[in-house]
Amino acid sequence: MIDYERFFSIAALRSQGSAIRKMGVMAVRVPDMISFAPGYPDPAVYAWDEFREIASELLSGRDGSVLQYGPTRGHKDLVEACLEILASRGIKAATEQVLVTTGSQQGIDLIGRVLLNPGDVVLVELPAYTGAISAFKNTGATLVGVRQEPSGIDIEDLERVVARERAAGRTIRCLYLVPNFQNPTGLLLSLEKRKRLLEWASRTDLLIVEDDPYGALYFEDTATAADTRPIKADDEEGRVVYLSSFSKTLAPGFRVAWMVAPDAIASKLDLFKQTQDLMTPALDQHIIYEAYRKGILTSRLPMLRKFYQEKRTVMQEQLRAHLGDLITWPEPKGGFFLWATLPARCSTDEMLPRAIQQRVIYVAGSAFFVDGAGGNVLRLSFSLPSKEKIVEGVQRLTRVLKEELAGHKAPVEI
Amino acid sequence: MIDYERFFSIAALRSQGSAIRKMGVMAVRVPDMISFAPGYPDPAVYAWDEFREIASELLSGRDGSVLQYGPTRGHKDLVEACLEILASRGIKAATEQVLVTTGSQQGIDLIGRVLLNPGDVVLVELPAYTGAISAFKNTGATLVGVRQEPSGIDIEDLERVVARERAAGRTIRCLYLVPNFQNPTGLLLSLEKRKRLLEWASRTDLLIVEDDPYGALYFEDTATAADTRPIKADDEEGRVVYLSSFSKTLAPGFRVAWMVAPDAIASKLDLFKQTQDLMTPALDQHIIYEAYRKGILTSRLPMLRKFYQEKRTVMQEQLRAHLGDLITWPEPKGGFFLWATLPARCSTDEMLPRAIQQRVIYVAGSAFFVDGAGGNVLRLSFSLPSKEKIVEGVQRLTRVLKEELAGHKAPVEI
Repeated sequence: MIDYERFFSIAALRSQGSAIRKMGVMAVRVPDMISFAPGYPDPAVYAWDEFREIASELLSGRDGSVLQYGPTRGHKDLVEACLEILASRGIKAATEQVLVTTGSQQGIDLIGRVLLNPGDVVLVELPAYTGAISAFKNTGATLVGVRQEPSGIDIEDLERVVARERAAGRTIRCLYLVPNFQNPTGLLLSLEKRKRLLEWASRTDLLIVEDDPYGALYFEDTATAADTRPIKADDEEGRVVYLSSFSKTLAPGFRVAWMVAPDAIASKLDLFKQTQDLMTPALDQHIIYEAYRKGILTSRLPMLRKFYQEKRTVMQEQLRAHLGDLITWPEPKGGFFLWATLPARCSTDEMLPRAIQQRVIYVAGSAFFVDGAGGNVLRLSFSLPSKEKIVEGVQRLTRVLKEELAGHKAPVEI
Repeated sequence: MIDYERFFSIAALRSQGSAIRKMGVMAVRVPDMISFAPGYPDPAVYAWDEFREIASELLSGRDGSVLQYGPTRGHKDLVEACLEILASRGIKAATEQVLVTTGSQQGIDLIGRVLLNPGDVVLVELPAYTGAISAFKNTGATLVGVRQEPSGIDIEDLERVVARERAAGRTIRCLYLVPNFQNPTGLLLSLEKRKRLLEWASRTDLLIVEDDPYGALYFEDTATAADTRPIKADDEEGRVVYLSSFSKTLAPGFRVAWMVAPDAIASKLDLFKQTQDLMTPALDQHIIYEAYRKGILTSRLPMLRKFYQEKRTVMQEQLRAHLGDLITWPEPKGGFFLWATLPARCSTDEMLPRAIQQRVIYVAGSAFFVDGAGGNVLRLSFSLPSKEKIVEGVQRLTRVLKEELAGHKAPVEI
């Protein structure tokens, strides 16, 4: 037997699979499981008929480029479409600043490779999106957390952290954050703080990585488009790299997203994307472009906002009815997630096997914290399950939590 | 103006765009250009009708997973199909050893991240595939070249290089090679050398990365399936990571490829793929799987072999007729490429602008050599242009080369 450890890079030796993720993978095989775990959009609202028609036209063979190698930066028409979408969000950008990516996950990974050396500090929120945490960790960077408040990242803490890290001689590269309906908290960063962050970046001479997959999915009962104005829209100095995606609004299976960065950074991102996958799949890019061109993306947004808002409402009602005296959460004003804080003595990690036994699953909060916190928090995604499943799932969760609080803590085999 | 250089990682600072690549990108915009540059398959032989039908069925909405997030390792059915294809090539593998990748380019990039530290040595052929060179360079690894002979890599030189690098105290991690119809030379590695490489890997305790995108496209006038038997097929120790792709046989625009590696390596590749794009696009994977299941892939291979063989034959005939006394090349027994050596006094780099002026383009050999060689060599791809274009293109190339040899070396503005 060969011991392959000897062959692994330092990065590979460092990289470890998540036990919770593995448990989640096992759990989806349990029959009748109700999953609040993955942040998946609901296939019930994908534009199946329109995609079928578009794919059929594209695959007529008239245009070979639909299935051919193409530019690393992306299908030209789609890049232009991204510029239009950016403009609608207040962001002026040039063609040379845009990259179509194979999901925003690729964009985050590329940023890691272009900006981060082993040991460099990247600032993330407490809590932060796990996919960004993993991508940055895979570069060997050090992740340092910054606290949140109900209005988003705590800028006083941000200042303290920067001062502390710099005093310790560490090189900080950038701040990564999700300002709109953050994964996992659902928080919406206040407009006032967005301006302050730009001032902060300029003063501290740092970059901001603004990840915005959920911005278009604000809930009209509590938020407006104006509330989601990207930080990038007011970025006059070129401090912000902005990422957005079609995954939550059209469908994630296409893996089509895009990013916009200052020219010099975009050029480097391009070089790393070339070696990573040459280009984002051509058929997917063409389908997304046609869906945009035909107005399918834009015209469906009001329906999608309402659809996910209703699921959010059902989940909140159920949680209030059954657990309102035990847990707290900030009301999600958009996006896919509800972030619930349990009594301090609960461990959502330890509770997970018992939840799976009750055929309900969530993501334990600890996965999102780079400082080891989050022990009594959990993320519930309301985007995928039907309203009926949400009702039933919250009931199951209620049983689990009440047992937990009653002290039924025997280990469970799953 | 912000100086972004300050923010770049060491890897990004090191990474530079290729001037030749940029020239190529410009050149494709020239009207009536005949391009022998990119290794693109010909859309004329894509299974358009079948893909259209399959996409239409898949996008009926019956199966939400077609457009949903899915497993990082790949669509389960497609992984099983890959195991069947591997078995047909003599490779026994387990599900846990397979990863579907977003093109083999991603597989190469993942290998770089899992196996290579900055300064580690990866051995590549002289010449080698540029995409692998760039991906490995982006990890900060040192690329060391090993000579080729007509029967493929020169194993005596390989032994010398390993001894030399180890004596110099460097850590060698693996050998990367393309045994079947190599990009760029078209060479077919002899079966005897395949066995010797396994013995070599075992004795020197190294890994082999076997990249096999072209193996199924052997030309029946000069090669057989048996000649393409993967090194991996006889890899009893687990020394070989094997990559293959649907890009050359079905279509590259889907970006669906796969790799097989020993379990421990596959687990690490999985972790890095998670952070790189979460998964290969779902619709593309489903289309490829259905094309496999319905026999479309397998049944079309004889036609594809004949199709590209005929183009190769036309190119060879034309080169022989017009340039037979000036250039030499090994006969391509499969794949997409012809590798032509010009008289020693020619520079294919310097000749390129003049070729573009004559509306014909190739890739200059220097791009493929990690030791600075290849000045009088060029790669001609016969896969994409029609036979008529091949005839015309060789005539244009003949004019360029004859002018070059006659000393018309005035610089050209393009």
